Amino acid sequence: MKLKDIGEISLIKGFAKTMRLDSSVVKGSGDDAAVIKWTRDKYLLMTCDMVIEGVHFKLPGASPFDIGWKAMARNISDIAAMGGLPRYALVSVAIDAEKSVLFARELVKGMIAAASRFKVNIVGGDMSRSKKLMIDISLTGEVEKPNVVLRSGAKAGDLILVTGAIGGSGKGRHLNFIPRVKEAREIVTRFKLNSMIDISDGLVMDLWRILDQSRVGATLYQNAIPLSKDAGPFKEAISEGEDFELLFTMSIGEARRFFRTYLGKMKTPVTLIGEITKKKDGYELVNGEGKVEKLGPKGYVHF
Amino acid sequence: MKLKDIGEISLIKGFAKTMRLDSSVVKGSGDDAAVIKWTRDKYLLMTCDMVIEGVHFKLPGASPFDIGWKAMARNISDIAAMGGLPRYALVSVAIDAEKSVLFARELVKGMIAAASRFKVNIVGGDMSRSKKLMIDISLTGEVEKPNVVLRSGAKAGDLILVTGAIGGSGKGRHLNFIPRVKEAREIVTRFKLNSMIDISDGLVMDLWRILDQSRVGATLYQNAIPLSKDAGPFKEAISEGEDFELLFTMSIGEARRFFRTYLGKMKTPVTLIGEITKKKDGYELVNGEGKVEKLGPKGYVHF
Repeated sequence: MKLKDIGEISLIKGFAKTMRLDSSVVKGSGDDAAVIKWTRDKYLLMTCDMVIEGVHFKLPGASPFDIGWKAMARNISDIAAMGGLPRYALVSVAIDAEKSVLFARELVKGMIAAASRFKVNIVGGDMSRSKKLMIDISLTGEVEKPNVVLRSGAKAGDLILVTGAIGGSGKGRHLNFIPRVKEAREIVTRFKLNSMIDISDGLVMDLWRILDQSRVGATLYQNAIPLSKDAGPFKEAISEGEDFELLFTMSIGEARRFFRTYLGKMKTPVTLIGEITKKKDGYELVNGEGKVEKLGPKGYVHF
Repeated sequence: MKLKDIGEISLIKGFAKTMRLDSSVVKGSGDDAAVIKWTRDKYLLMTCDMVIEGVHFKLPGASPFDIGWKAMARNISDIAAMGGLPRYALVSVAIDAEKSVLFARELVKGMIAAASRFKVNIVGGDMSRSKKLMIDISLTGEVEKPNVVLRSGAKAGDLILVTGAIGGSGKGRHLNFIPRVKEAREIVTRFKLNSMIDISDGLVMDLWRILDQSRVGATLYQNAIPLSKDAGPFKEAISEGEDFELLFTMSIGEARRFFRTYLGKMKTPVTLIGEITKKKDGYELVNGEGKVEKLGPKGYVHF
């Protein structure tokens, strides 16, 4: 049997099952970052993310600066989605020796630009040769214990909120997006969030991940979902990847407090797009005509 | 200008220069692992290491279990070389979807075997497709502040010591070696080391790295260097890579105390192979005939 026959998810799940983790690991794989007990007040967060030519970007096409920025920013976004602050990065680059020095410098500049903007220290790395360009970055962050937000804490009755706007990232924004660290920190330090994820595989898929880990259902309201000016048709916009917006849930009481006391002070819009329901109520969308459609991890479910 | 014209070292040095690091970073790139202030008593250690098909191993040839073991063990060895304990790993794998599930499982088994043996928690990872197999692992460790050992602390007059035996790793040991964590911890918790590195690019190159960072010279004694039973000719044995033994220096007084009180209790041999000299005395080998030969980073220097 070949890997393509069982898929990445099965393999990773099998992998995760066979590993023993000691009691210092609060959360291993399966969230935006691992959570580790480290000091009395703070958790350590650890994440890694790989971008590969031909899979995550194309050459020529993407500029090397943008590729470097994206490779770093994806990881920063993962730390933001835990409510944390990014701190230390390790950068591995595999690159063709036939590439120009200028290309490599621009790649590095892009990584450093993203790192500098979010006060990330690049503390090491590794370099090797490869026909296809590959960048793997691991990022360590920190978060005060009360502020950590997992995917698994959503509760029936929670409201579902999203930063910014959805869709159209394929037109370029997926390469030069600004990870929502500032927004995440503004919110987690003032309000109690029950769950959070960053949208890297589309709103529908990433909300499904919250539902799956929290064992709940959800209803989304089509007319409430803010679409980016670059977005295509609605169904496409909520299914395509790499918005890198934050998707989170709060109790109604906490959400009310957030809307009344803080939303007006934020530069980035935050929009209420749905609510968490009981698992038995399933994953649904109330469409533009007020009709209910069924959703699944990969988008609309057709019968 | 192409990358192959300037080389990896220049690029990485240029990279390192343009980065700003905050005061929490005790040591960034340039050692076996980065050293970061984290708690009152301990430093955080961070390292990453990539292995790529065709560069670090060949397929078919190496078994997937061995490749997995090696990818993890290289990182563990880096943490050992800082005097630390390995703790948390993130694993990125890029693999051809045409590979068999069995192959992938064996690869994972090899990683888990190495991780389990050294109590490393695999807390996350990433997976992607690539024609050539690539594994990048980042490993976080910890070390009590007084026990951390850098490459840069060697002093003229120090003795140079090495664990185990040198050479011949190409015959298979480079794939299934046991990282010297136990030995490093036995020694750093009892004795003051001035510098340490693990031998991943050959004794001559890796000692040169200590000399370069410590601004000192060294004299090695050919007749004192323990060769592995698999080793080829002496010149080859001390120049080839991937012994993954620990190379370290101590003051004469501390070394004497080590030899008298502790060496007899260790299962792994530790051998005195030379001494650190002043920088102006250069990098030398006293050969089997008692003659002095000049060494450089890449081995013998010929005039």
